[in-house]
Amino acid sequence: MAPTSGTLHVVGVGPGDPELITLKAARIISACPVVAFFAKAGRQGHARLIADAHLRQDATLVRLEYPYTTEIALDDPRYAAGITAFYGECAARLATHLDAGQDIALLCEGDPFFFGSAMYLFDRLAPHHRTEIIPGITGMSGCWTAARQPMLHGDDVFSVLPGTLDEDTLAARLADCDAAVVMKVGRNIGKIRAALVRAGCADRAIYVERGTMANERVVPLAELAQLPTPYFSLVLVPGRQRAR
Amino acid sequence: MAPTSGTLHVVGVGPGDPELITLKAARIISACPVVAFFAKAGRQGHARLIADAHLRQDATLVRLEYPYTTEIALDDPRYAAGITAFYGECAARLATHLDAGQDIALLCEGDPFFFGSAMYLFDRLAPHHRTEIIPGITGMSGCWTAARQPMLHGDDVFSVLPGTLDEDTLAARLADCDAAVVMKVGRNIGKIRAALVRAGCADRAIYVERGTMANERVVPLAELAQLPTPYFSLVLVPGRQRAR
Repeated sequence: MAPTSGTLHVVGVGPGDPELITLKAARIISACPVVAFFAKAGRQGHARLIADAHLRQDATLVRLEYPYTTEIALDDPRYAAGITAFYGECAARLATHLDAGQDIALLCEGDPFFFGSAMYLFDRLAPHHRTEIIPGITGMSGCWTAARQPMLHGDDVFSVLPGTLDEDTLAARLADCDAAVVMKVGRNIGKIRAALVRAGCADRAIYVERGTMANERVVPLAELAQLPTPYFSLVLVPGRQRAR
Repeated sequence: MAPTSGTLHVVGVGPGDPELITLKAARIISACPVVAFFAKAGRQGHARLIADAHLRQDATLVRLEYPYTTEIALDDPRYAAGITAFYGECAARLATHLDAGQDIALLCEGDPFFFGSAMYLFDRLAPHHRTEIIPGITGMSGCWTAARQPMLHGDDVFSVLPGTLDEDTLAARLADCDAAVVMKVGRNIGKIRAALVRAGCADRAIYVERGTMANERVVPLAELAQLPTPYFSLVLVPGRQRAR
């Protein structure tokens, strides 16, 4: 590590409401001459929008645009190869700035180490550069806050499950815990609902979309009519509300 | 609800580092004439210490002191009866301020709806008073940040388990997930370690104490010699770090 090398700050910006950014995140973003963020083609980048008020006017923006979102299937070997190459290129772009002595704020929705792309850049850059992590409020926490739904009590067992699991596995995992969050809802909603019914927790399940954002939506799962949007949506199963 | 009634703000103050409070939490705490917090006998109250810089000088402090911590066993019926009466008294004290038109910031470590006492006051007060929840960064997120440990990737299944579960159940639940956090470590450390070994994840487990606080401690579980302290400690089992 060169003594003049910059620091990579991996900055969680929280679930969506720009006021749910931390004091530390705001301070670091406003101090960094380089601000990097992931974005899908044609989008402004959600993390960048959340952090907008804190960016320096003279900041160099490094847009890391995903090469594809749905054009290639996730289980196609070309997907894995393409995304690996993409993360390698992103890390190289950031390394150029760090080697030039520039500090970087790499913005992440939610919490940087709780899912998300930033971890793949951290893995590549941390061995050779100074790195600092600033945690953020997770999207799921934003969702149960939006639903005004206490989630976990006392000795509750809690699970976070991807909606991509098969129905039998989903039902078994749900039956083994007191509270759960099911992510990656989208087209998996029918299967998720069936698994929740089998596990006996469909009645208390709540569907939440874009928690803490301006267009948030909270619907008891039993009343969910239309197919949910695939982005920022999840299903909450609150824990056992023991009388106290 | 009387039209002049105050608002109860249930405010998450994050994992310990005072700079990991959100902009919204800081704004609301500094605007509230009444600040309430839980504390153990003889302690200053951890959430109150985290939020200290934001309290109004003229704020009325409402200290909610737990009636006991270890004098009565958790499974003693007198414990449940005593703690129920305690939460009832706390809610009544806060209601007096709300009825007088005063806004309250009820401070909570971590995230208000992710374990913790504030939910029991929310349950009692929300039906009759305006309430607002401000989410916070959880203690577990503070811990994996302190450990510089990416936790969850792709389709990982994640579980949060209390160390109070029996060893067989702990081992079975650990075997069913990719990543886990075991809470309530303290005197359960021997049993937790045995369960981790049986589930095949002891090698990558990390013990973290007081994550993001000044005196934080991060130790690979395999190297943990002395018995851990019971407060703010947990064991992290990172998810599958797929090559990417």
